[in-house]
This record gives sequence, C-alpha cells and structure tokens, in this order.
Amino acid sequence: MKSDIEIAREARMDTVIDVAGKLGVPSDSVLQYGPYKAKISLDYINSLADQPDGNLVLVTAMTPTPAGEGKTTTTVGLGDGLNRIGKKAMICLREPSLGPCFGMKGGAAGGGMAQVVPMEDINLHFTGDFHAITSANNLLAALVDNHIYWGNSLGIDVRRVAWRRVIDMNDRALREIVCSLGGVANGFPREGGFDITVASEVMAILCLAMDLKDLERRLGNIVVGYTRERKPVTAKEIEAAGAMTVLLKDALMPNLVQTLENNPAFVHGGPFANIAHGCNTVLATRTALKLADYVVTEAGFGADLGAEKFFDIKCRKAGLKPAAAVIVATIRALKMHGGVAKEDLGKENVEAVKKGLANLGRHIRNVGQFGVPAVVAINGFTSDTQAEVDAVQAYCSDLGVEAVSCTHWANGSAGTEELARKVVALAESGKSQFRPLYDDDLSPWEKVRTVARSIYGAEDIVADKSVRDQFRQLDEQGYGRFPICMAKTQYSFSTDPSLKGAPSGHVVPIREVRLSAGAEFLVVITGEIMTMPGLPRIPAANTIRLDGAGNVEGLF
Amino acid sequence: MKSDIEIAREARMDTVIDVAGKLGVPSDSVLQYGPYKAKISLDYINSLADQPDGNLVLVTAMTPTPAGEGKTTTTVGLGDGLNRIGKKAMICLREPSLGPCFGMKGGAAGGGMAQVVPMEDINLHFTGDFHAITSANNLLAALVDNHIYWGNSLGIDVRRVAWRRVIDMNDRALREIVCSLGGVANGFPREGGFDITVASEVMAILCLAMDLKDLERRLGNIVVGYTRERKPVTAKEIEAAGAMTVLLKDALMPNLVQTLENNPAFVHGGPFANIAHGCNTVLATRTALKLADYVVTEAGFGADLGAEKFFDIKCRKAGLKPAAAVIVATIRALKMHGGVAKEDLGKENVEAVKKGLANLGRHIRNVGQFGVPAVVAINGFTSDTQAEVDAVQAYCSDLGVEAVSCTHWANGSAGTEELARKVVALAESGKSQFRPLYDDDLSPWEKVRTVARSIYGAEDIVADKSVRDQFRQLDEQGYGRFPICMAKTQYSFSTDPSLKGAPSGHVVPIREVRLSAGAEFLVVITGEIMTMPGLPRIPAANTIRLDGAGNVEGLF
Repeated sequence: MKSDIEIAREARMDTVIDVAGKLGVPSDSVLQYGPYKAKISLDYINSLADQPDGNLVLVTAMTPTPAGEGKTTTTVGLGDGLNRIGKKAMICLREPSLGPCFGMKGGAAGGGMAQVVPMEDINLHFTGDFHAITSANNLLAALVDNHIYWGNSLGIDVRRVAWRRVIDMNDRALREIVCSLGGVANGFPREGGFDITVASEVMAILCLAMDLKDLERRLGNIVVGYTRERKPVTAKEIEAAGAMTVLLKDALMPNLVQTLENNPAFVHGGPFANIAHGCNTVLATRTALKLADYVVTEAGFGADLGAEKFFDIKCRKAGLKPAAAVIVATIRALKMHGGVAKEDLGKENVEAVKKGLANLGRHIRNVGQFGVPAVVAINGFTSDTQAEVDAVQAYCSDLGVEAVSCTHWANGSAGTEELARKVVALAESGKSQFRPLYDDDLSPWEKVRTVARSIYGAEDIVADKSVRDQFRQLDEQGYGRFPICMAKTQYSFSTDPSLKGAPSGHVVPIREVRLSAGAEFLVVITGEIMTMPGLPRIPAANTIRLDGAGNVEGLF
Repeated sequence: MKSDIEIAREARMDTVIDVAGKLGVPSDSVLQYGPYKAKISLDYINSLADQPDGNLVLVTAMTPTPAGEGKTTTTVGLGDGLNRIGKKAMICLREPSLGPCFGMKGGAAGGGMAQVVPMEDINLHFTGDFHAITSANNLLAALVDNHIYWGNSLGIDVRRVAWRRVIDMNDRALREIVCSLGGVANGFPREGGFDITVASEVMAILCLAMDLKDLERRLGNIVVGYTRERKPVTAKEIEAAGAMTVLLKDALMPNLVQTLENNPAFVHGGPFANIAHGCNTVLATRTALKLADYVVTEAGFGADLGAEKFFDIKCRKAGLKPAAAVIVATIRALKMHGGVAKEDLGKENVEAVKKGLANLGRHIRNVGQFGVPAVVAINGFTSDTQAEVDAVQAYCSDLGVEAVSCTHWANGSAGTEELARKVVALAESGKSQFRPLYDDDLSPWEKVRTVARSIYGAEDIVADKSVRDQFRQLDEQGYGRFPICMAKTQYSFSTDPSLKGAPSGHVVPIREVRLSAGAEFLVVITGEIMTMPGLPRIPAANTIRLDGAGNVEGLF
C-alpha cells in the first residue's frame, strides 16, 4: 500500500486556474500562489451576493478514539462522490497548523485516495494565512506593552493583561514567561506567555468574519486586559484594529486547492476546537455555497463539540442552514467504546460493536435536536466484518437513519457513491429545519446547562462561586447574548476522557469562563486546556528533510 | 507633489509573467504570488549555470545622515537608466522588514519615480520569506529547549544557550525574558529573548547560501549553545537542519517584481547591516547575473560598512567580481558632514559642502582599495545649487572619479541616463580588478585591525583581555579563517556617531566578538547593538488601516 504522501505526489493536478474555471470563477479573480494554490478575490466574492445558495452538508463524527474515525477523509471522499454522481460539489476544510508537523508525524489533508493536494504546501506555509494571524496577534501584544511603556494612559493593570502572544510552533518553553526584563528601556516586567497560533482569538475572528469591515469591527472588540478597577480595555482603545486588519487582508481570502480527483476545495482557517469553534472560515463556506450546489464541510472533534459549535456558533452567526449531516463512525471506534483494547481491534467482536453503538446513538439523536437530518457513514477498514457492519445498520435503522459503508480511503469517490446519493436524497427531501439549541437571550449559565443536559447527557453543571460570579459579571457587562464555546475533552460525553460510550447522569464542573469579545463567544472551560503543545522526546523534526529530488521526507 | 504610495498605486504594472519573459524566463519556471509577484524556480536557476555572467554594479553611499542619501532609490533609478539606454539590466534589492512598518512611518522600496512595485505587498507579507525564516529560527529554538527537557544528552548548559528566538515585530518586551516557567511540564527556567527576524543568523545564512544543499550545511553548523566545558553544540547535533531547510525551501527562491518603469527586480533577503552583512541573497544576485547584462545592487549603510561587507563577505564567498561601484552622495548630507544643522540645509553653503567632501573622499579611496572603479551619483534635491554641485564635481575630479547629477526621484530613468552611461563606460573599461581587503588566513584580530586602519582611518583597535581571549579561542576552534562582520555605528567612520566628516587617528574599542558559524563570519561589535527595536510613543500602527477601496492607509 502506498503512503499518503506517495499517493499525493503522484496526483495529476489541474492548474488552480482550471479548478477555479470549473466553478465559474474568472482567472482575474484567482490570485495564484504557484500553479496549484490560489486565493479568491474579495471583490469577486462580493459580486456573488445575489446568487442562490447550494446545499450545506456537515461531516461530523462519533466520539473519537485512538483508533481514528476519518472525518477529513470522509469530507473529501463525499465531495468527490457528489461530483462523481454529477453534482456540482465542493468541500471546505480547515488549514492544518505548522507547529504540530514537527512534533508527531502526520499532516492533515485527508488520507489514502481521499486527500487534498498539493499536500506538502498545504501542511507547510501554504498561502501564509497562519503567519498573518501570528503577526496580527503579536502586533496587538506589542502595542499593549508599548502603551504601558509610554505612560499607560488607559490604566491597564500589568497583572491583568489578558492578551497572550502566539507562535505556530510546539514550544513548551514559551507557555509561561516573564517579559520586559532588563531594565527601564525594556518596560515593566510582567508575567505572560505564548499560545500556538490556532489558539489565537484572531484565528477565531478571521473564521467568523463576514467581510473586511466585520473583521476590523471584531478585532477592535478584543479585550486585551483590565484596569485595576476591572474595566475591560479593548484593541480599539489601543488603536490596533486598523493595522491588524491590514495584516489580515489577504488572509481573509479563501484558499482554493483540489482533491486528488481534481475537484475544488477551499482550505481556509483553522481555529482550535476547544477554546474556539473549530470550523473553517465563514467566508469560505458562504462563498462555496454561491459557487457549488453541494458544499461539504467538517467540524472539529466529535459531534458533541464540533457539530454543536458548528450549529450554535457558526451557523447561528453566519445565517447558514445546513441541509444534512453525515456522522462518521468506524467499526474500530465502536469496539473501543464497547470496551475493546486497541491491540484487539483487528478481531471480530459484534457484541462490543453493539455496546459501543450507544455512543453513536446519542450523537445521532443530538444532531436531530438541531433539526438537521443525518446519515451515518461507516468509514471502512479491512478488518471490518459484515456481521459488525450489519449490527450498525440495524441499530441505525431503528433510530430512523441510514448507515452506509464507505471505502473512499481505498477507492476514492467510487467508495462514496452510495453515501453521496443518500446525502442528496436527504438534502432534497426538504426535511431540514435547522434551529440552534438555545436562544441568544438565555443567560450564559443556562446556555451551558442546556448543552450539558441536552448534548452531553449530564445531570447538571457545577462551579465555584468565583466562576459563577464571572458568569454574572460577563452578563452584566453585556456579553450575555454571546453563544457559548465549550472546552471539554473530546474523548467522552463527560469531562472524564476515560468514560466511553454514552455516560449519563454525570455532573459537568465548570472551571473557568473566558471572554472572546471579538470572536463573540464565551469560552467555558471544563478541564485542563492545553493551548501550547510540546514536542515529544523524538520529534518528527529530527527526520524531516529534503531528499535529492527536492521532496519533503519525514513530514507524513 | 504626489506621495510615494500615490505614485506606486498609479503604476501601470506588467504581469510578472511578462516581466519574467523579458528576461527569458519561461512561464513554467515562474511561481506566481498573485499577478505581480513571483518566485523563480531553483531548477530553472540551476539550468543557467553555464550562462555567462553580466556586469555587477554596487550602489553604496557616503556616511548617512538624517538628511538621507537615497541608496535604494538610486539603485532603482540606475537600473531603469541602464534599461533606458538599451542595456538588458535588472536590480537586486533587500526585502523590507515587517515590524518597523508599524513603528515609524515608511516602507522601503525606493521613492518618487524610482520605486519597486507592488509596494504595499513588498512591505507587508510579500512572498512569506521572513515568516519562513522566523519559523525556521524558532523551530531550532524549540528543539533546543526540547532537547534539554527530555534529558539533555548533549549536556547543553542552560546558562549558555546562545540561540535566541525571533519575531518580525518591534517588541521591546521580548528583548529579555525568562522562559520555561510554570513547573516541571514546561522545562528548565532560563534567561532568553527575542531579536527581530532580520537579525536572525538564519537570515544571514539564507542570504549567503549557494543552493539548498549549502543552505542545509550552513544551518547544521549553527552553534546553538555550549556545554559546561564550553564545547559548542550545533544545530546538526540537535538534528534540526533538515527540518529547517524544509521550512526554507520556498524562501530560497528569488522574488521577482518590477520597477515603476516595468523593468525586472529581484527583492530577496534582508539581513541586518550591523550584526550581519546587509545584502540581498547571493542566489538572487547570481541568478540576475545570468539573466541580465547589468545587475545593479545595493549594500546597507555607508560604504565603510555596506560596501566593505559586500566585498569582503558576499563577493569573497560567492565568487562575485563587481565591475563598478556607484557612491551616492547628496549636497544635503555633505553639508551636514560640513557642520550644518538639519534646519539650515535648505540654504546654499558651498564652504560646508567642501568641508563635508572629506567624508565622500575617504569612501571613494576606500572603494578603490578593493580594485573596483567608482562613480559618484549626486542624488539631486531641489535645494541644491549649481555652485554646490560644481564643488563636488571639482573635488571628485581631483580624485580621478566623475560625479554625476541625478534626478531619478523626480524624473525616473530620464534622470539617470548620464549616470548609466558612465557606469557602462567603467564596466566596459575592464578596469575592475576586484580583490578583498584581507586574506582568509590573516588572524581575526588582524582582520579587524586592517579594516579599522584602511577603511575607518583608525590608529588602532583595543579590547579587554576577555575579548582578546575570545578572538584567540575562536581562532583555536577553527573559525579563524572566516571573514569578519563589523558592527559599528553607521553615522561615523569612528565608533562615535557624532564624529562627522573623515575622522582619523581614533581608536576602535572592540566590545565583543560573536560567532556566526552558519553564516561563516565573526561578528565584531564596537558599540551598543540593538537587535530588537521598540515602538515609538505614537506608533504608525495607530493610523494604519484599509480605506473604503481596500487600499492601505498610513503605512507610508
């Protein structure tokens, strides 16, 4: 079997001008970055405003396990499958982060016969969006410290600077630092730190912005810190929003690439799926809907986090109405939820599959709560047996949804034809009656409780008085109408990653709530959230190099 | 009078494919970044190896003053002038740094009618080279701390980590930090800090590398720190060089843009001119020489620093043989060297000009020491009088060089026709007999003394015993054959920036010597060197924004 990178390198790519041409995008609206990557101009995007929208399809998944579920791969495969059955379809994916490529092996552009290309470029600097986000984030940080240095007329409390710097690198040494050391010329020493770029609020903002103007407005609303009287200080008061927007003006344009089957793909934006909402940009999704009849997109983690945020944050705010959802499951993951250890996943175990289906079942019911009709995609592995697949299909059928076997990893679009037909049938059925889970005017605390009970199967939520006070204060400060962005382990419906299946009656402890005033959501933290990864003992960087032919070795 | 940015915006640009076509570069070797920027593929560059070289012309300058001398502008103007008189000419410039754009106003792409375009792009992210350098630099830093974290088998002394992180931002708060705070999971606390990206040794290496293989070799030679026994530890030992090269593989390709007159320009690389050598990449210069009959390039600061390093570091190492040099002077700068205050520069003062000519005279003689014939370009201002210009021409004539009035800022190539003819005459005269100032096998201390006496007019150099010991140790460790890279104030031949004109008999105190083992030079520091600028009280960022038409306001 060929590796992902070998398959990607052998791809016969169309020029990005031709890919754009398929969508009807004229070449003078295509800003090329080499022959196979491009950005689509904002002027052209604006000209599409009156076009009708295509059908939006979300690919989400059951609760992830180390066995892998293949959400990106299924998104790519379904996009190709829809094209194969004659639909004008495109996909929207998140951009991978550079830093992690040098830690554990592996990029993020699909796999097998369901990939987006050029893979090496997408995984390295791509079109520079993340670098632009890093620059904008760190310009704001520099302006905050510079404001303090030159007299601090806004009265920022140096102990309450909330804005951290970012870098697109796994670098644990920067998690907690003391900066401005070295004497008078270097400022007022204070504690600070760096997150990885995907954790920047600027990333979340870029991904939710409707246009340049909305981008600048949101950047201006970022709260960078507080005065001694706890009054928030914003990026607008620091006079940073204009310059940050200038740094981001190219990054806001969606990036066009292609699948191995030469179908168009936007790969644009990539916010964290815990402290942010984990979806590609609104602008890419909305543009794709103008250009294609079917747009397939994905959301981070399992449906309890990814789909919930996709619906309650992205769709709510961007006015998107998904026509259907695909819930990816694998026999292997179901077995793990049924209690099988990773090393035993190769053996048939129908009972374990049946036990694990409780997990899938809750995700199916959850998606239904948003009024979006769903189909289950069983992402096939060679070790799957017919009896195991039958068990899944029978279970799903009882819940009123179909479960379709897919083999896109091995066969590309030939392996998703049936899935594509089911998705079209769902979309054309007009069954979707999308609605967010909670109303804007519910209090933040009640929003969290609603998600915990309805989606996680929890009994209730709890928090210390100080945290409950934070909720109340944010409400009083006028941020109460924001949706909530849950930061919870992706490995369980509960806050305990070892609780597989579909736990219920548990209690969700809320540790902290953070304001993302520019992204316009409240981040509700239920556990340890790592916003700056470290490198492993033997980082992938040690073996990454160019071979004699100029190909990248060791990255994948 | 229109501003630089207004002129740049009104430029009628050719597509970069057409610009490349003028040079004979086929379109499939041109990697476009939008319609007006491109990188030239390394495979194509390799295919040029057997082509003959054109004539290399260095533009350097007298000792700079706050009055400005216009070195970049003259480089652009001369390139256009050479094209105007029928020569196939191109220019090679440095890339501007992003960070300073948000501090003081002003980009760096020439001025008036002598600019390179697209100006906004060149001054913002351009083709991402500096971001790639930042990433490579910081990957190495992360790998060093990660090595220490996971057991430190190389025995790096955390007090002697020499490798600093970088960021392309003016951020004084990061000059001196303590990192790895926060407990066991974050590593071993130590002092560290950030420089601005142009000060990274990775930048200097990229600018001196002959090809990808040489790039990887040099990156591997970087000394990241020392053991308790003072043994150097290299990037190769950290196993970082391969991954760093992967991050830099696109950045190594020269960037093609154009002048306002649609003539080709490489804008590629931009190392500091004090702790590094201050020239665009060797690869851009060498490629330009294969593509054009005349290549005009510039070096940072005045000729005592810029030209000396261009000759002694870049030309020596890259095997370049300059055919001629242009020394830029202005009547205003001459007056300042003659003792006139900035506010009085508008008044005719022939005596002050005559007095200031001592500065220009020494630069003329200095360039002669390298065997390169020179011409003086008087970069015209409206306040210049004929009597003042006459004084310069008479003085230069006595020294055996011509001084030509130029008006490229106001008139573009029409203002440099005469200069272009003189440069062609010099180049075609065959007079150039380029030789570096000192031999490789002179000891580092003697190399410094040679530069100080021959170029700066100094009596001698002095240093504390600890510094002299450093010189000796570097020699013993095998680094003695490297050229030296002087870090001295650009405002005087001496180390005292207030000493104008042509001081002599002074003594140059050497404060420190630093090893750049990858760039392959020894940095000799003679004063305070700032490697991380700060932002001013009212940073330009405060007024930078997009206007309604999507143009950048406030950047220039």
